[in-house]
Amino acid sequence: MVNLIKKKRDGHSLSREELTEIVEGLVSGKTPDYQIAAFLMAVYFKGMDAKETAVLTELMMHSGDVIDLSAIDGIKVDKHSTGGVGDKTSLILAPLVAAAGVPVAKMSGRGLGHTGGTLDKLESIEGLKVEMSSAEFIKQIQNTNIAICGQNANLVPADKKLYAMRDVTATVSEFSLISASIMSKKLACGADAIVLDIKVGDGAYMKTVDDAMRLGKMMREIGANLNRKVICVITSMDQPLGYAVGNGLEIQEVIQCLQGNGPEDLMELCYNLGAHMLVLGEKSTDFDEAKDKLKELINNGSAFSKFKEMISAQGGNIEQIENPSLLPQASKCIEVIAEESGYVADLKAFDIGMASMKLGAGRETKASVIDMAAGIYLYKKIGDSVSKGDVLAKMYTNDESNIELSKSKIINAYSFTKDKIEPNSIIRKTII
Amino acid sequence: MVNLIKKKRDGHSLSREELTEIVEGLVSGKTPDYQIAAFLMAVYFKGMDAKETAVLTELMMHSGDVIDLSAIDGIKVDKHSTGGVGDKTSLILAPLVAAAGVPVAKMSGRGLGHTGGTLDKLESIEGLKVEMSSAEFIKQIQNTNIAICGQNANLVPADKKLYAMRDVTATVSEFSLISASIMSKKLACGADAIVLDIKVGDGAYMKTVDDAMRLGKMMREIGANLNRKVICVITSMDQPLGYAVGNGLEIQEVIQCLQGNGPEDLMELCYNLGAHMLVLGEKSTDFDEAKDKLKELINNGSAFSKFKEMISAQGGNIEQIENPSLLPQASKCIEVIAEESGYVADLKAFDIGMASMKLGAGRETKASVIDMAAGIYLYKKIGDSVSKGDVLAKMYTNDESNIELSKSKIINAYSFTKDKIEPNSIIRKTII
Repeated sequence: MVNLIKKKRDGHSLSREELTEIVEGLVSGKTPDYQIAAFLMAVYFKGMDAKETAVLTELMMHSGDVIDLSAIDGIKVDKHSTGGVGDKTSLILAPLVAAAGVPVAKMSGRGLGHTGGTLDKLESIEGLKVEMSSAEFIKQIQNTNIAICGQNANLVPADKKLYAMRDVTATVSEFSLISASIMSKKLACGADAIVLDIKVGDGAYMKTVDDAMRLGKMMREIGANLNRKVICVITSMDQPLGYAVGNGLEIQEVIQCLQGNGPEDLMELCYNLGAHMLVLGEKSTDFDEAKDKLKELINNGSAFSKFKEMISAQGGNIEQIENPSLLPQASKCIEVIAEESGYVADLKAFDIGMASMKLGAGRETKASVIDMAAGIYLYKKIGDSVSKGDVLAKMYTNDESNIELSKSKIINAYSFTKDKIEPNSIIRKTII
Repeated sequence: MVNLIKKKRDGHSLSREELTEIVEGLVSGKTPDYQIAAFLMAVYFKGMDAKETAVLTELMMHSGDVIDLSAIDGIKVDKHSTGGVGDKTSLILAPLVAAAGVPVAKMSGRGLGHTGGTLDKLESIEGLKVEMSSAEFIKQIQNTNIAICGQNANLVPADKKLYAMRDVTATVSEFSLISASIMSKKLACGADAIVLDIKVGDGAYMKTVDDAMRLGKMMREIGANLNRKVICVITSMDQPLGYAVGNGLEIQEVIQCLQGNGPEDLMELCYNLGAHMLVLGEKSTDFDEAKDKLKELINNGSAFSKFKEMISAQGGNIEQIENPSLLPQASKCIEVIAEESGYVADLKAFDIGMASMKLGAGRETKASVIDMAAGIYLYKKIGDSVSKGDVLAKMYTNDESNIELSKSKIINAYSFTKDKIEPNSIIRKTII
C-alpha cells in the first residue's frame, strides 16, 4: 500500500489491479485507515485521470449490492442533483417523467446541513413508507412505473467508508473523488442513463460555473467509460429554488407545481431536466418536443395523478395531497419584514438553508430529529421590487428557541440594490 | 483537527497553538492516525516554513525526556550524520575531540537496512556496555570527558510516532519533517551546538548537493530559531567511507585511524568535522588551527588513549583494542576478483551496504541479529587502477547462504573506465 500511496503522491496513474487492491483493502478493513487517509490526500493534490476515475467508480459500484432493474421494461433514467436549498425537483420530475412513460426507479437520500433530502420531504406525508425490499420496489415500478425509496444499506460500502474518511481528512472537495462517489451510487442503483443537475452558486458545493463544468465533464467521462449515457445540466443555486424551504412546505410547493401553479425557476428546471430524461429514455427524439410533452402532462393533470398513485402505492395519506392544509402545520409563523427598499440583489441560499435548519427543518448532525412543519416561505426573490415594511419571508416552526437567530440569518441573506436587476437564468450550461 | 489539515492542505502556516494541538494529539493518541496521516501528506505537498519547523522541532523535543547535561562543564557539541555506508566517523571523532577538551556526550542509534549504527559497531567489542542510566552517563563524562550510549527509551516519543506514521504513508522524504526529526532528537540529547554531516550521493538519502544544501539550511534555521549553533558539512557518499564495511571490520579501521594509519577520505572528514566541533566548543578560535591540533592528537597518541579510556569505562575488553586480531573473526573470507581492467569509475555505496547486510553485518528488519565479524573490506576505490584478476574486495561472513548474492552485488557496485579519474572530494560544501 505504501508503494501505491507513493505512486499517486508522485503523480502517476494507478492500474486496475492497483485500484482493486486499494478498494478491497478499504472495504475489508485490511488497509489501515491512516494509509487510506494518506492516499486520499495524495489524490487531493494529484487527482486521478479519466481512466482511473472510471475504474475506481466501477470498483466502488461493485463493492456492495448492485440493484438489478432488468425486470423492469424500458430504459431506466435516473436524475441526480448535487444538492441545493429548496430543491424539490426530484419529487416533481419523478411523476412527470413516469407519466411520460419513463420508468422511475429512484433511490434517494436524507439531508444533512443546509440542504434537505428527498426522503425527508416525502416523510412529511403521513404513513408514507420509504423503506422497501428490492422485490417490493421493482413490483411497484412494474405496477405504477414509479417508486422512490431509501438506499439499500449494502449499497456501495466503499463509498460510505471513503466518504467518512474524506470528511475527517479535508479531502472531500477533490473532483475525481466526488465524481466516483456520485457515479458509483447512481450506477449501483441500476441506472441505464443519468441526468446530472450540478448546482452552482452560494448554496452549492460548486462555487463557479468552471468548477461545475469540470465536475460535469469528469462524470460524463466516467459514463462514457462505463457505457452509460450521461447528460449534465449546470444550474443556478445563487438563491433557493422556488419559494418553499422545509419538508412539509416543499411538499405543498410540489403539489402546486404538479397542478400547474409552480414558480417559474423551478418549473423551468423541471422541464429542462425532464426533457433530457425523456430523450435519454427514448420517449422523445427531440428536446423541445419532450419539453412540450411534459408541459402537456402537467396541464392535463397526468403528472399529478401519477404523483398521487405513487403516494398511495407507498402507503401515504392521499388526503394530505388533495388538501395540503392537512400536511404538518407549524404552531408559530413569524414574518420577516424588509428594513429597506430596493430590488433584491442577492438571496444567499446557504444562509436560508441554515436558517431553515435552525428552525427545525434540517439536521445539524445525523442524529437530529426533523420538524416536518418547520421551514421558510420566501415572498421575495432576486430581481423582485421590495418596499420597506414588505414581508420578505415567513418562518414556520414549533420551537421558539432559534427564531431570532434564524430571522437574522434571513435578513442577512438578502441584499438590495437601487437598480433593477435580473437573476441568473436557472440553466447555466448543458453538457450533452 | 480537520481544520488544521485543511489549513496546511491550502498552504497556510500553522501557529504555535495549532502545532501544539497536533503534537499533543499525536503523543496522547487522541488524534486518530488517519488524521495524522492526512496532515503528513498535506505537509509533504505544502511543506512548513522556518518558523513552523522550529516550533514543531521544539514541541517534539519536549514531548518526552530532555537530557540535562548542565552538570558537565563546557560546551557540549554533538555531531550527527544522516547515515552512510562504512561511516565510522563518530567512533573516531568522539575520542579525538574529547582529547581536545570538548566534552562528548553521545547518544547513538542502531543500524537498519544498508547503513550501520554506531551502537552496533561498538558492541563488536566484548563486554562493552551501551545501555546506561543518565546518572552513569554524566558521571562517566565528568570522569573521562567521553561516553557513547544508547538513546533513552522516552526520548522524543513524538518523533517515534511520527516516523512510524511517515514510514507507512510515503511521507518520509519531506524536508521539514526530516529536519524536525533529526533536530528534535539532537536537542533532546542536550546538545549546545551541533555539527551536521549531511551525506550526498548514491548511498545517502540525499541524492544531490542541492537537496543536501536545502536540508542543511533548514536545520541551521531551526538551530537559529532555538538558539543553538549549527554547522552543516555536506559530504560525499558516492562510495563507502574508508575501506571497511561491517561492525568488527570498522572497529579495526577506527583503531588504524586513531593510530595514524587511517584512509585519506575518512581522516579528512574526521579532521574537518572535528575542527568545526572544536570551534563550536570554543577550544579553538580558528578552523585551521583546530585541524592542526587534531592531527597532533592523533600523532601523539592522545586520541587513541582517549578511545581506550572510553572502552574501559564502558566495560569493553581493552585487549581487543590493543590486538585487533582478537576482535570477532569470520570463518569465511572470500575474494572478489576484478573481471576487467581500468580505473574504478564508480563504487556504489548502496550496493556495498546491501551486500554487507546480506553477509550478516546489518539488519534487514528490526529483529535481525547481526554477525559482528561479517562485512566487506574494499581494496579498490574510485580512481584506483585495476588489472583484471586483482582483488577488488574481500567478503567476511559466518553464513554461506548469501555469498553469491553479495558477490554479484559487489561486482555490480563497481564500474570501470579507461581514463584516469579523480573521486569527488569528500567535503562538498559547508554551511557555517
